[in-house]
Formats: sequence, structure tokens, C-alpha cells
Amino acid sequence: MGELIPNWLLQRSYLTPNRTALVFNGQTWTFQELKDTVHNLAMKVAGYSVTQHSRVAILVKNRPSTVFLIHALQMIGAEIVFLNSRLTASELSYQIKDSETTVLFYDHDFDSSVKDLEKLCSQLKTCSIENLTMSEKYSVNIRNEFNLDEICSIMYTSGTTGKPKGVLQTYGNHWWSSTGSSLNLGLQANDAWLCTVPIFHISGLSILMRSVIYGIPVFLMEEFNEKQANSLLQSGKITIMSVVTVILNRMLTVLKDETYHENFRCMLIGGGPAPLPLLEKCALKKIPVFQTYGMTETSSQIVTLSPEDSFVKLGSAGKPLFPAQIKIVRTDGTEANARETGEISLKGPNITPGYLNRKQSFHDGWFLTGDLGYLDEDGFLYVQDRRSDLIISGGENVYPAEIEAVLMAHDAVDEAGVTGISDSTWGQVAYAFIVGQNVSEEELLQFCQARLASYKIPKRIIQVKELPRNASNKLVRDKLRLLIEGRE
Amino acid sequence: MGELIPNWLLQRSYLTPNRTALVFNGQTWTFQELKDTVHNLAMKVAGYSVTQHSRVAILVKNRPSTVFLIHALQMIGAEIVFLNSRLTASELSYQIKDSETTVLFYDHDFDSSVKDLEKLCSQLKTCSIENLTMSEKYSVNIRNEFNLDEICSIMYTSGTTGKPKGVLQTYGNHWWSSTGSSLNLGLQANDAWLCTVPIFHISGLSILMRSVIYGIPVFLMEEFNEKQANSLLQSGKITIMSVVTVILNRMLTVLKDETYHENFRCMLIGGGPAPLPLLEKCALKKIPVFQTYGMTETSSQIVTLSPEDSFVKLGSAGKPLFPAQIKIVRTDGTEANARETGEISLKGPNITPGYLNRKQSFHDGWFLTGDLGYLDEDGFLYVQDRRSDLIISGGENVYPAEIEAVLMAHDAVDEAGVTGISDSTWGQVAYAFIVGQNVSEEELLQFCQARLASYKIPKRIIQVKELPRNASNKLVRDKLRLLIEGRE
Repeated sequence: MGELIPNWLLQRSYLTPNRTALVFNGQTWTFQELKDTVHNLAMKVAGYSVTQHSRVAILVKNRPSTVFLIHALQMIGAEIVFLNSRLTASELSYQIKDSETTVLFYDHDFDSSVKDLEKLCSQLKTCSIENLTMSEKYSVNIRNEFNLDEICSIMYTSGTTGKPKGVLQTYGNHWWSSTGSSLNLGLQANDAWLCTVPIFHISGLSILMRSVIYGIPVFLMEEFNEKQANSLLQSGKITIMSVVTVILNRMLTVLKDETYHENFRCMLIGGGPAPLPLLEKCALKKIPVFQTYGMTETSSQIVTLSPEDSFVKLGSAGKPLFPAQIKIVRTDGTEANARETGEISLKGPNITPGYLNRKQSFHDGWFLTGDLGYLDEDGFLYVQDRRSDLIISGGENVYPAEIEAVLMAHDAVDEAGVTGISDSTWGQVAYAFIVGQNVSEEELLQFCQARLASYKIPKRIIQVKELPRNASNKLVRDKLRLLIEGRE
Repeated sequence: MGELIPNWLLQRSYLTPNRTALVFNGQTWTFQELKDTVHNLAMKVAGYSVTQHSRVAILVKNRPSTVFLIHALQMIGAEIVFLNSRLTASELSYQIKDSETTVLFYDHDFDSSVKDLEKLCSQLKTCSIENLTMSEKYSVNIRNEFNLDEICSIMYTSGTTGKPKGVLQTYGNHWWSSTGSSLNLGLQANDAWLCTVPIFHISGLSILMRSVIYGIPVFLMEEFNEKQANSLLQSGKITIMSVVTVILNRMLTVLKDETYHENFRCMLIGGGPAPLPLLEKCALKKIPVFQTYGMTETSSQIVTLSPEDSFVKLGSAGKPLFPAQIKIVRTDGTEANARETGEISLKGPNITPGYLNRKQSFHDGWFLTGDLGYLDEDGFLYVQDRRSDLIISGGENVYPAEIEAVLMAHDAVDEAGVTGISDSTWGQVAYAFIVGQNVSEEELLQFCQARLASYKIPKRIIQVKELPRNASNKLVRDKLRLLIEGRE
């Protein structure tokens, strides 16, 4: 059995009841107020047959009600399935069924998605947050302690097969991620974290967990707005912010020749290495950029590069958090030498115990990421190629195999290959190449739109004579981009 | 099995090799240098048949060689028995035998103690640090990972029976104590901890563990010197210091009307509540005093009162660290109400798994301290009476039962009772009361000196007609002090 430690929100509201927990559009909640609100909500949630270990999905925006709901579900001990609100009803229904979710709480903004979803999942009980808030209260069995081995959250991530896999995240995963991060970044009395990344991603959820564990406020933003974010960072109220390249670029463009308040001490950037011009711009403005490498399976960043190493170790993702380890593994399973490329393997208590209903990616306690990279002589990690040709577009993971499967479902398409192409705005965008009958690009795009979240839809679908394949006739996605260079 | 995390010193020297690890008399070591020195020493230690799980005692001063030795033993995975250097050979031999220690490393200052000890423990292999340093090197099996469930250290503490008990401290206990403390006190890039408390106490050892876990320097002092300590705290190099009342008083007396550098952010005071005049003096000088409650069994402080609450919650020990819990228990085992006195029970991953070869003090996962206290409406702890009439004299624990047992071993003594009397210098000192034949106080004091560490020797041994006893004829130590009031 894992360690038993006090329920984080209960403990936090006992230890520092009057500290600010949450700020949203100028409204604030102390930890005491947050706890009271959450306790109240938990009694309403209990009316929907939610008990310990119930699988409850949420389809929500970055709003205070989401923060309340997550803590309320933790108070009851439910396992929360975080749905990406950009997915289609068909994508969502797969995750609901795979996770055997019984209840869904959602923001009214997603009414129509939920209507479609209900048709696909007839057993699913659904309730909007608005209705939940007006529900009756029931008595509820509050979890005074968290067992660190218990499942806290489930987040879906796609893989090589194209079928999304549910990543199990325990309370311990979040705990070790939080404390590991604080040993790296430090923890100050004036700390406050700006959260503009989606809460349904680990980048957002980890900020909420840190808030209660550290006792620091979250400044929550519903829709990212560069002017508003800049003004917060200039106010001195924010010390840390999590971003992806596209977001930081947008902020800097608007910032022009100004900079941020000296209290702002950490721009935590994930989702692929930061481009050099961006680093240079930040250095000039004395904005401290911490590049990170992490994934849903590591419950947020696990490798971090501090600002002072940004230029010395250009392109590196940094070193592991204190409780974590990196090993580069050759295809034969032995450990690679310095500067020798191999599969990036990770170990540490912040790493998922595994996927729901799936084959695990562990070997001897080490998690095999599928990403390729190397360590230099000083032990700095360089990520060379994302696993399974992963495309990271505006911070969202896009898997070629998933898009290819959709395209090939179209009658006119015989073969499909998808790859990521560099894009100044999004970092990368998906380009699709097909071999098939006479069919227009528009028709295929419409076909995708009905089946894929908008961020997964290829920017271009280009018809070609044949796809690059290797001797065993397997698609070589690396060579797909040559098809564009030849054309444009 | 517990979590596996990287060997702390190896990981720290990998992550931040160039940060300062240790400062002693103006000499400094980086984490890289510390690791190299320690690795070298571990190869010499290996020549003394020390392997994983060997019980190795150390009898040492606060010197760099002690820091090296502790890390070297951790690198091999030996369990370190920390001997209090103020104990007599007879007291030490009890601990050596009880812990089945096979090897002792010691500083040459304790040559004569060790000679006496060798006579009492014929099986014990002994080696001075000087000889160890000059030893040959052997190949050694380095622990790349620590299992948090494994025993790291053993420290003896006396109890009601008077026989010292070996407190087992796991790697996890130290880990959770360190991270729990950092969640409470924060962790800054400029942090540095001044260690003048003995390393053989948990107060000192915990500073060494934090240094490698946090990546901050320890400023080590061999003998406490108030002028030197003040000058360090005025230099801006130190941010945190652990003290007991008597030490802080000595520092303030010498400090006169000056104060400390603004970088100094935490005076962590243990060993009983700080007296009001001391708190007032510190408030005036803007010295931030954090009062704490903790013991060997909790691997350092577990309850802490922050400076802003010092005067609002006068006399309180504060609230628990984030991963820990307090409960006040009635004699019937039920939980007490606010302001109702009962036994202080503690829970948390920083608490010992138990005593060596002894009955455990746990009930349903809760550690029963034996101390009496209450929680107020806000959950602040007030310690009212130390367990088993514990006397805390200058930060050292003194148990009446142990002194009484020694006195009663004297032919002329029929009954003995010992209690703590307030003392402006030491906080408390032991006073003994005896019923017996005609015997001089000097003779009894000499008798004690041969058998007890000097800090345990009663300040006075007073002959009385009878000792206060209750209906069942048990000694009522609380009433012993009335015997003085009647006399003086």
C-alpha cells in the first residue's frame, strides 16, 4: 500500500486558510473558501451515484467551477477522466467506453457535443455543471487521506496504433511531480502560477495540484489572451507561467519593446524545444525561460533546462527532476554511450503505473517513451525525434497514424501518409499525402472534419503517385516532406 | 517495496555539480568535489567488511570528514548508528550491543572512550577516521538508487524504562522530512543552512540530508561559537539556522544592539517552546523565529509555528508539516475536542517505522508520543507536558527514569526521584531527590559521573524523608519540585 497523506485541499485549508487559492477575472477565493465551496459541491455530486473509485468524466473549460469540480471528485475519491474539449463526439465516445465511465459532468458550452455523445453512449449519465450546482445535497464520505498508489486522474493520449490510450495518474504521480518540480524551481512565499493551458491537459491539471500542495494561488484564464497575460506578468502578481512556443510567441509579439516584472521568475515552456530566435528575444528581455520535456505519462515535466544553460546547451531539454532518471537505450536493450542516439527511457515516482486496458511500455521499471535522443558528456538530454513521428501542433499531440486511418476510411483513398511540417505559428502542422482515385482536397477535408478534432485536421491533403516506402514496404514518414519540397 | 529514487549525492552531483555543498573554516567543497571525496572514501570503508545493511556506528565531531563518512556509508548502503559523543563508554556499549553493530569509525578525540568501549565490546572492530583515510582502497558496490523503505540511520533515545531505544530512520523518513520542511519554509536559490547542532542528533543529520536533496550548502561549525555564528548570520551567506533556546540566548547576548542580514530568513528553534522574552527580543530585531516540535522518531521537526503566528498563538508549537497529521487522543483512545488535553499522536511518512528490538508505540498507524497537549479551535498544537517527564536540558533529552536507576544502584540509596527544574541557561536541569542512608551529595555525584553523560548528571541531589507517591504507591514526579519550594 502506498503512503497515506492528508487530503491535499483539506490539509491546505487547515494549514493556511487565508492564503489566496484561486483568482479568476478579478474574483478571488482563499483556501478556506475553496474548501467550503468544494465540500458543498461534493455533496451535490454524491447525488449522481458518484462514490470512491467511480469513473467520472469531465468536459469543461478553464473556469473556477472546473477547479471546484476536480477537488470535489477528489474529495469523494472518484477517478476523473479528463476529456479534451476539442475532440469530436465519436472520439469522446471511444474514451468514455474504454474507461467505462458512468457519469459525465460538462460545461453548457458543450451541450451539442454531449447530445451527440449521448446517442453513442446510451449508458452514460450526463449532467451540466449548471444543473449540478442547483442539485440537492446528499451526505458524502469525505476522503481525509489520499493513498498515493490510488488513481487520481486518467488522460487519453494517442499512440502508434492511432487508438488513444488512457494514461493512469496516481495521487503519488502528481505528488512527486509537484515536489520534484519545487526542488528544481524552488518555492517562494510570493509564488503564483498563471494557468492559461487547458486543465484537461496535464500541463493545466498539474498547476491545480501544485497550488494546493504548495499553498500558492492559481491565476486562471478561460481563453488565452496575450494582452491580458502580458499585463498580469507585468503586474508583479505572477511568478511562474506554463506555455508552449506558439503562446509565448504571441505574447512577445504584443509585448513589443516592454518586458515583465522582476517578480516573474519562470517561463516554463513545454511541447518541443524552443526555437533559438525565441530564446534570444527572451534573453534580451531578461525573461527566464525553462525548457522542459515531459508527457502525460510523466505527469508533467520530467526533464528541465534552466535559463543559464539555455545557450550553453542549445537545443537540450536539460536534466531530470531530482527523483527521476534518464537512460538512453539501444535497440538491443543495452545502455548507450554519451552522444549515442537511442530510445529515451525514464524512471521515477512521477511516472504513470501504466495504461488502461493496454500493453505497458515498461522494461525493468523503466518507461520506454518511444522518443529518440541522446545524453551529452554532462548528462544533458537532447530529444531528436518524437516517438512514432508525433506531431506537436500548438502544444497538442497529433499522431499521424490516427489521421491516416481516417483518410483511408474514405472510399477514394488507397494509401495515406501524414507528417509534421514546421510552421512559424504552431510549431508544426500536419500534412497528408494520399494515393487514390480522383477526389478533391475539400471533400477529404470535410470528411476529416466530421471525424477529427480541428487541431488534427491536416493543413493540406496532397495527392501523389506513390508514398515513400522501405524495402519491407513500410511507410517512411520521414521522407514524406520531400514530396513537398519537390512540388513547391 | 518503497519507491526507488536516485542516490541523493550522486543525483545532486549530476544535476548541479558546481554548486557549493559544504563550507568549513573557510574551505569549500562543491557537490562534484563532495561526491569524488565520498566515492574515494567508500572504497576505503569497503576494506572494513562494510557492505549493504552492515550496522556501522560513528562517534564523531562536526567535521567535514563526518559528512564524507556518512555519505560514504550511504553509498554502500550501510545502516549508520549515530553515537552521542557525550555518553560514557558504558552507555555506548549498550547501544553497540543492542544494535549489533560490527564496526565503529571514530574521531581520534574519542580515543580513550573507544579504548574503554573495546573492553566492553570485544567483537567490535574499531578504526579511527585518520586510519581510515590512510587505508587501502577496495572495489565497492555503489548504491545507485535508494529504496525509501530501507533503513538509513539509527539514533538512540531514552524512554520511560530508562533503557535507550534505537529509533530506525528510513531513507523515506529523511526524504519526507526534507520535502515536508521545504513545502513549509520554501526553498530559495540563495539558501544556505548553518549547522552548529551535533550531526549525531537528528537536528544535525537532517541538515546534511537537506543539503543534498535541496542542492544548498551546509556551513558546518565544529564547536558552537556565538561570535562566529553571529558574524555568519550578518554576512548574508546564511539563510537558515537550527538552534535551541540556550544557543539563541547566547547569540543574542553577544549580538547586543545589532541584528542579522536581511537574507537570514529562518531561525528554526527546537527543544521546547521559546520563552516570551526571547521571542520579543527577536521580534524587535526582526529575526524570524520558527518554533518547532519534533523528536528523533519524527526525523526532525513535524510541527512548526511561523513567525507571524508567534505572538497570536503564544506558546504554541504550530501546525503539522504538509504530509503529517496530529490527533489528540483521550486515555480511552477516542479523539479529544479542541482545547481538551490528551496524548499527542502523530502520523506521517517522516515518522519512524519503529524501534529496534522493542515494543512499538503505534496505534492504527498513529505514533503515540507520550507527550500531553491540546489543539486549539484553529488546530494549533500546544504541548503541555513532555512524555515520561522528559527533561530537555540545553537541547539534550534527559530521562528521569535513567538517572533514578543509576542512583538506586548506589548502596546507600533506597528510593530516588528526578525531575526537571527551570533554568535560565539550559531551559531545564535535572534535580534528584533520594531517600536513604547517610551519604554525601558529592559521593553520589561522583557515582553518577562514572555512569552518566555529563549533561544527565543532576545539578543537585537532595536527601528527603520521603518521596511523593500516589495511592498505588507510584512516584509522582510532578510533585518533586514542591520539595525544593519547601526547602528554598
